[in-house]
Amino acid sequence: MITSWPELAIVLVEPKLNKNVGAVARAMKNFNLGRLLLVSPGCDHLSDPARALSCGADDLLERAEVFTDLDEALADFKLVVGTTARLGKYCQPVYTPAQTVEKIDELGRQTAVAIMFGREDFGLAREQRRHSHILSSIPLNPDFSSMNLAQSVLLYGYELGRKKSADRAPQSTTELATHSELQGMYGHLRKTLNANDFLDKSNPDHLLEYLRRLFGRASMTHREVRIIRGIMGLIDHLSGKR
Amino acid sequence: MITSWPELAIVLVEPKLNKNVGAVARAMKNFNLGRLLLVSPGCDHLSDPARALSCGADDLLERAEVFTDLDEALADFKLVVGTTARLGKYCQPVYTPAQTVEKIDELGRQTAVAIMFGREDFGLAREQRRHSHILSSIPLNPDFSSMNLAQSVLLYGYELGRKKSADRAPQSTTELATHSELQGMYGHLRKTLNANDFLDKSNPDHLLEYLRRLFGRASMTHREVRIIRGIMGLIDHLSGKR
Repeated sequence: MITSWPELAIVLVEPKLNKNVGAVARAMKNFNLGRLLLVSPGCDHLSDPARALSCGADDLLERAEVFTDLDEALADFKLVVGTTARLGKYCQPVYTPAQTVEKIDELGRQTAVAIMFGREDFGLAREQRRHSHILSSIPLNPDFSSMNLAQSVLLYGYELGRKKSADRAPQSTTELATHSELQGMYGHLRKTLNANDFLDKSNPDHLLEYLRRLFGRASMTHREVRIIRGIMGLIDHLSGKR
Repeated sequence: MITSWPELAIVLVEPKLNKNVGAVARAMKNFNLGRLLLVSPGCDHLSDPARALSCGADDLLERAEVFTDLDEALADFKLVVGTTARLGKYCQPVYTPAQTVEKIDELGRQTAVAIMFGREDFGLAREQRRHSHILSSIPLNPDFSSMNLAQSVLLYGYELGRKKSADRAPQSTTELATHSELQGMYGHLRKTLNANDFLDKSNPDHLLEYLRRLFGRASMTHREVRIIRGIMGLIDHLSGKR
C-alpha cells in the first residue's frame, strides 16, 4: 500500500501546455496525490487534450485550484519546496527527492506542504524560486537533464508513495508558521535592515537570500517568527530614537 | 553525479507504439542508461515520432539491438528482472524498484542485467514472464495503477541512478560553522538582547533557547553566523548611540 498525503499539494507555476497538466494529474493519481494548484496557467486545464492525457484523472483537473498570485496560492502552506533542474548554481543545499520526502515526513502527514514546479521551458523564475523554503532537484545525467514536467512530478509522487507509513508518532505542526507569516517576516527584515544600511544598496536581496535559506531550512514556528520580528522591532525602536 | 550501469539493459518486449519507444530512450538517457533491446517490436523505433519523443536520445534508438526471439535476446544476462503491474497474483516475492536495484547492486556493476517490460496494454505474457529471475513492480495507487511504459522505465532509471547516493561519502561540510563559532554567536545574542531589555530579566535563557533550537535545526554556515552577529552588531551600534 502506498502512503497517502492528504495535505500535500502539487503547485504548477505558469504551465504552458494543457497536455502536460493532464499528464501531471495522471502521475499524481498514480501515487494518490489529490491536490493540484495552478498559478497563472498559460493553458486550459479542462480542455480535451488535458483530459485525454490525464487518462481518467479528470477529477483532479476539475478540483484544481487556480490562482493568479503566487503569494496567495502559497499563503497557507507550512513548507514550500521549490524544484529546480539547475544544480550547483546555488549557495544553499539542494535536496534530492528522497531527502525532500524525508523532510516532509518529519513535519508529519497533517502539515500543508507545497511542491512547486516552474514553467516547462524555464523552470521557476528567480522571483518565484524565492518563495521556496527549501530547494529540491532530481539527480540526472548532467549531459541529458531535460525532463518532462509530468515525469518530474511522477518521481516526487513515487518518493512520497514509497515513504513507509511512518513508524513515528505524528508531530504536531500547529505551531509552524504559515508562508504568509514568513513572507511578512522577510518583508520586515528587508525594511528594517535596509533602513539601517545593513544591506548592500545596489543589491539588497543578496544578504536577504542568505537569511531566507537559513530560516527556510529550519521550518520556523509562529513563536520563532515573532522573536525575529521582535528583534527587528527592537532595531526599529532604537533607530527611531536616534 | 548519478551512477552508471554499463552492463544493464532495458528490454522492451513487443512494444506497440514508436512514440513510447522514443520516450523510453529519453528516460533512459536521463539516468545514463545506454543499452536498449527490442524484442519483436510492433513499431519502427527509427521513425520520426520515435526520434521526436526521444528529445535527443536518438543515439540510443540507433544503437538499439533488435531480436525476434526472447530467449536469444536474454541469453547473456546474469539477472533478468521481469516487471509487472499485477501485484499479489504470484506465489513468489515481487520486488519494489528499490529492492530490485539493491539486488542488482549486490551483483556488482559489471554484471549483465536485463530489466524487461512487456507490451503497453498487457504487460508481459505468462510465457515471457517465465524468463524472469525475479519479478518487480512499482507500488501504485491500487485504484489508478495504469502507468505509461516510459514512466515505468523512468522510475527504474531513477532508482538505478540514485543507488550510489546511499553509499556515497557525505557531502563536504567545510562551510558549516564550528561549535565555538556558534557559541560565540549565542553569547553575542545573549549580551546584546539582554542589554536592550529584549530578554526576560528573571529568565533570559527562556527566549534564547528558542533561538538555539531554531538555529540548531538549520545547521548554520560560517557566513550565516557572521550575518546574525552583524545584526547584533547593528543593535550594539544603535543602542550605543542613544
